Amino acid sequence: MKPFAFISLALILCRLPLFGQEIPSTSTNTVSARAARVTSPEVEPDRRVTFRLFAPKANEVLLTGEFMHGATNIQKSESGVWSITIGPLEPEIYNYNFTIDGVKTIDPGNAQVKTGSTPSTIESILEVPGDSPAFYDGRDVPHGEIRTHWYESKSLNTLRRLTVYVPPGYDKSGRTRYPVLYLLHGANADEDSWHQLGHVNLILDNLLAAGKAKPFIVVMPFGYGVPPGSSNALGQNTTMFCRDLLGDVIPYIESSYRTEPDPDHRALIGLSMGGGEALSIGLNHLERFSYVGGFSSGLGRVSDFPKTYASLIADPGAANKGLHLLWVGCGRDDGAFATSRAFSEFLTQNKITHTFHESSGAHTWMVWRRYLHEVGPLLFQ
Amino acid sequence: MKPFAFISLALILCRLPLFGQEIPSTSTNTVSARAARVTSPEVEPDRRVTFRLFAPKANEVLLTGEFMHGATNIQKSESGVWSITIGPLEPEIYNYNFTIDGVKTIDPGNAQVKTGSTPSTIESILEVPGDSPAFYDGRDVPHGEIRTHWYESKSLNTLRRLTVYVPPGYDKSGRTRYPVLYLLHGANADEDSWHQLGHVNLILDNLLAAGKAKPFIVVMPFGYGVPPGSSNALGQNTTMFCRDLLGDVIPYIESSYRTEPDPDHRALIGLSMGGGEALSIGLNHLERFSYVGGFSSGLGRVSDFPKTYASLIADPGAANKGLHLLWVGCGRDDGAFATSRAFSEFLTQNKITHTFHESSGAHTWMVWRRYLHEVGPLLFQ
Repeated sequence: MKPFAFISLALILCRLPLFGQEIPSTSTNTVSARAARVTSPEVEPDRRVTFRLFAPKANEVLLTGEFMHGATNIQKSESGVWSITIGPLEPEIYNYNFTIDGVKTIDPGNAQVKTGSTPSTIESILEVPGDSPAFYDGRDVPHGEIRTHWYESKSLNTLRRLTVYVPPGYDKSGRTRYPVLYLLHGANADEDSWHQLGHVNLILDNLLAAGKAKPFIVVMPFGYGVPPGSSNALGQNTTMFCRDLLGDVIPYIESSYRTEPDPDHRALIGLSMGGGEALSIGLNHLERFSYVGGFSSGLGRVSDFPKTYASLIADPGAANKGLHLLWVGCGRDDGAFATSRAFSEFLTQNKITHTFHESSGAHTWMVWRRYLHEVGPLLFQ
Repeated sequence: MKPFAFISLALILCRLPLFGQEIPSTSTNTVSARAARVTSPEVEPDRRVTFRLFAPKANEVLLTGEFMHGATNIQKSESGVWSITIGPLEPEIYNYNFTIDGVKTIDPGNAQVKTGSTPSTIESILEVPGDSPAFYDGRDVPHGEIRTHWYESKSLNTLRRLTVYVPPGYDKSGRTRYPVLYLLHGANADEDSWHQLGHVNLILDNLLAAGKAKPFIVVMPFGYGVPPGSSNALGQNTTMFCRDLLGDVIPYIESSYRTEPDPDHRALIGLSMGGGEALSIGLNHLERFSYVGGFSSGLGRVSDFPKTYASLIADPGAANKGLHLLWVGCGRDDGAFATSRAFSEFLTQNKITHTFHESSGAHTWMVWRRYLHEVGPLLFQ
């Protein structure tokens, strides 16, 4: 195995924070620029992590992150550098933020930024590598591609982007046709989130190289039917997005890629808001999809389940025959856990065969990467 | 023409800042969350722009941006919202930052963030649309794709990413082969910058639809040969990157795409650091490239030109025969202007045919988008 196989993707892309935090030219501090060019975050070999911020005029700096509960105060040195060391942390990819005198913001010393469709999603990214590569790290295996398309959505009368993962060798596989997973992001995210934060391509590359999954195409549309942040995001949003998905995205993909264009070879999975979309669209369109999944899903009100899923429960025998997989997962520390469990109970009461995957974890990409790694091998078998 | 043809890309992707700035849960302010959820930036129909920041504890907030010289103080209201209105601004895509009590940071109310390979590149993005679509806006025309590859660089013994633009219809054009433009980013940027900030795909889609350019593939590698921010970035960096480009990137592309693999159908252009790389690599490898260009190039010392370009000036007749285009452009407000003009004079003195394009503007993506729009039609004619 080549050396890079043991190095996390952030490192091999030469994204080491060698520059550190830039000191603005408008700063009136008298500390030398050299002293002020702090490195943050710094990961030690024992996986302790030091965060630093040069802010001599600030009165209070807090750190929040997926590696801890709540917020913690950071201490300031005489040189104006605030710093804190935490850990050792488990090898993982975490999000975090500073709050400087009440303003939540990114770590200005860190080039790795999580972005999306609304500002509330913006956070800094901390990658803590382990001794061996994780299932989501880039390894010395054949790699697929991420393809970004601009397409006209007639349903929404707008130009939109979508991203597509094609497995290794797609271009050289002649007339081979592939099954397709339609994979939806959550609220505040976008069509780049599943590869930038979810590492969908690296996870599937690794599963394929290990012979643990079948090759399939993954299509990641922009999952909003109304502008992000609109008040009626869960109702009208799903209706409008469903029109785009069924009326524009799927036809566009099936005319652009060598797909197997039948329900036995289409999956629909999403996370959070996208989990709610995937379950309500997928389970109401079994003529289109035979693999359906929701990760930490935004399911709406439990009392609405009988209405939302009326067609599914009307004929459980037909539904179970059409569904090759129905997978519902949620972490016990996730605010969506009780609703996900209630949905599983609703399915059981109505004799709908499914898997309810109860796991550790909260509402984070750490959980969703693992779920994709769990579900990938179950698709199209 | 469809309605979306008149709307800028940021808007049509539903990235309107409807959410505004999120108020951190750790904040101890007593202002209601509703009042605090500020919108920033807000672009009026007359193209005046208001920036807002909720920061009741801050003592000083500055605004810096490509639409102004230097920094300007923002005023605070009693509600703790800092705001300023500027303009009207010319329709453009600008970068900007806040500096809050000495800490340079993004606008926490804006989802649009410019990222790259070092933290110094992080800024917020302001898009001011005009009455009609700009040459870099998405229009109702056939669209190409951006493809992201993970490849093993044997030269650098690492896994790297590169992005590729394929023109509309590439997959359906049978055995057609295409010329290739290798297009390099600047310091602190990365392999995503030319499409995320440069809109390379939309600019070429629009030129193609207007019949003003020939279809070609654009390859955008990660242009560093040493880690970003290393001290010897201009010397060793170009040497190491050259090995990756010639030894790994070009062979990878020519085995993956239907290219015309000869020097008459290869171009090498870059901006800033990448402009220096393109000129020094391209003009020393006329057996590989016949179209070479530098935008606002980082050219090193003028006194080194005779040594760096020794092989070029040794036989001007052969060089001029091999070079179908040598294009050097720089804005008069750019710190690189004097060196670019000196490079043009050096070429003239040595009888190397070239175009020196002197323009308005500074060291910004505003200039580089225009340069690509100027040069695209000159390639492979």
